[in-house]
Amino acid sequence: MTDTVISSATRDVVIGFDRPFVVIGERINPTGRKILAAEMAAGDFARVREDALAQVAAGAHVLDVNAGVPMADEPAILAQVIRLVQSLTDAPLSIDSSVTAALASGLAVYQGKALVNSVTAEDEKLAEVLPLAAKYRAAVVGISNDESGISEDPDVRFACARKIVERAADYGIPAADVVIDPLVLPAGATNGSGAGTIRLIRRLREELKVNTTCGASNVSFGLPNRHPLNAAYLAMAIGAGMTSAILNPLHAEEMAAVRGADVVLGHDQNCALWVATYRDPDQDPRRQRDGRRRRRAENA
Amino acid sequence: MTDTVISSATRDVVIGFDRPFVVIGERINPTGRKILAAEMAAGDFARVREDALAQVAAGAHVLDVNAGVPMADEPAILAQVIRLVQSLTDAPLSIDSSVTAALASGLAVYQGKALVNSVTAEDEKLAEVLPLAAKYRAAVVGISNDESGISEDPDVRFACARKIVERAADYGIPAADVVIDPLVLPAGATNGSGAGTIRLIRRLREELKVNTTCGASNVSFGLPNRHPLNAAYLAMAIGAGMTSAILNPLHAEEMAAVRGADVVLGHDQNCALWVATYRDPDQDPRRQRDGRRRRRAENA
Repeated sequence: MTDTVISSATRDVVIGFDRPFVVIGERINPTGRKILAAEMAAGDFARVREDALAQVAAGAHVLDVNAGVPMADEPAILAQVIRLVQSLTDAPLSIDSSVTAALASGLAVYQGKALVNSVTAEDEKLAEVLPLAAKYRAAVVGISNDESGISEDPDVRFACARKIVERAADYGIPAADVVIDPLVLPAGATNGSGAGTIRLIRRLREELKVNTTCGASNVSFGLPNRHPLNAAYLAMAIGAGMTSAILNPLHAEEMAAVRGADVVLGHDQNCALWVATYRDPDQDPRRQRDGRRRRRAENA
Repeated sequence: MTDTVISSATRDVVIGFDRPFVVIGERINPTGRKILAAEMAAGDFARVREDALAQVAAGAHVLDVNAGVPMADEPAILAQVIRLVQSLTDAPLSIDSSVTAALASGLAVYQGKALVNSVTAEDEKLAEVLPLAAKYRAAVVGISNDESGISEDPDVRFACARKIVERAADYGIPAADVVIDPLVLPAGATNGSGAGTIRLIRRLREELKVNTTCGASNVSFGLPNRHPLNAAYLAMAIGAGMTSAILNPLHAEEMAAVRGADVVLGHDQNCALWVATYRDPDQDPRRQRDGRRRRRAENA
């Protein structure tokens, strides 16, 4: 049983084996969002504010914050965004950048124990990011690839994960503060690789005894009807032991999969969250009528 | 690797570890369907005909056929229904009754290798049903409960499953022709029992090396928003190794979970079925407009 505690100034969230699944909201990220990128570069954070509040309202436990705007001062913007988001919500943050200087700037202003997103098993990355995480006593997401890229072989990805955990220990970071991303590859490009990833998630939990996370939407990249496919993958991964994911909590399908998996595993005590969330799932009279019609037909 | 082959006169369906998940359509069953029960008792099978064709069109690989109409001649009706359904579709059938005489009557007219649904680990049931399955070289669903009822302890359910497999062997029925139902209990009544069921599914596959099935909708009994919860359970169970389920294939959520799990596990070669099914998932112009609006908002 491994607990990864992350916190804001006033609130803890625990990623853990026998706990409700932790949803890390992915929306505050200018990658692929041109309007948000332009606004961030211009110092306009109205959309960041909306995204923060909407994600927490939709059930995100942690918010990922990324300020990777091309040609802009990412360290300065990231610090501004973190201050703003921490003024709006007590959800702990995942500080997300591929630029070490931006992680440092973000950690310097962050109130609480952050999740640093991320480090890979590349030696240079480890040497840059782990001292920072250690300095601020932050938890860190470890991505299971190294200098040779992302392996389709789950054993190689397991070895990368082990390397990150061992290197973190050298810096005084306990395994409980390393959350491994086993890397889910697009099903459309790598037929069947998901089976290996599911086994890898189980090994990470049973052998390496670490918490895990993933970018759930990768699995459906390039395929139609992505949300139900992401939902199926999430439920399978949670069943195998995955304990958190970075996703868009505004998507009903993914959130129902996460909450449903918690119900099945007994992590939603008395199904209280499920019932509270879905007791009255749709106020749209047209859909209610369809629902009644469907039930009548089924009972015929 | 275990393959359970069931067949009609002209078509095999294989339930197996490394094969696409097998959907057994549950609709041809008068339980809880008063109109259908009355029609069946009166010899009107128009709705059976519709249900058979609709389920196959929706993606069912096998059709469950039950004629348990109270106070009616179940053996005679079941034989009639089997003849009718076999005249309409080449999908193999699961012959479903708690009355041994009805199973006998159904097996006598069935063309092919049926799935007998079901036997429990009760000695009397085993002694009645297994000789029938052996006589017709049918496969059989084994329900993991015995005279003492359904245990909440997965180890007890595993022992029931083992007993069924061993007793079947005494009658010359190979383990590959026993499909175990590990019994999923309602999450609302037995908080957390699903975790044990997930482990049980894995044990049935890894230790007993049998195929598995379940009534997927049991997990959500008494809870709101049942279909997404069933979908999450199905994906988790398939990830743990479940190879078939009895469900209503007209429910989009459950079928997407099944197809999505096949994509993740590499059981949908090149994602061909997923793409063919969902390439153009919704012809409703209103929903297409909503989809475009959602994508625009997400990319902002």
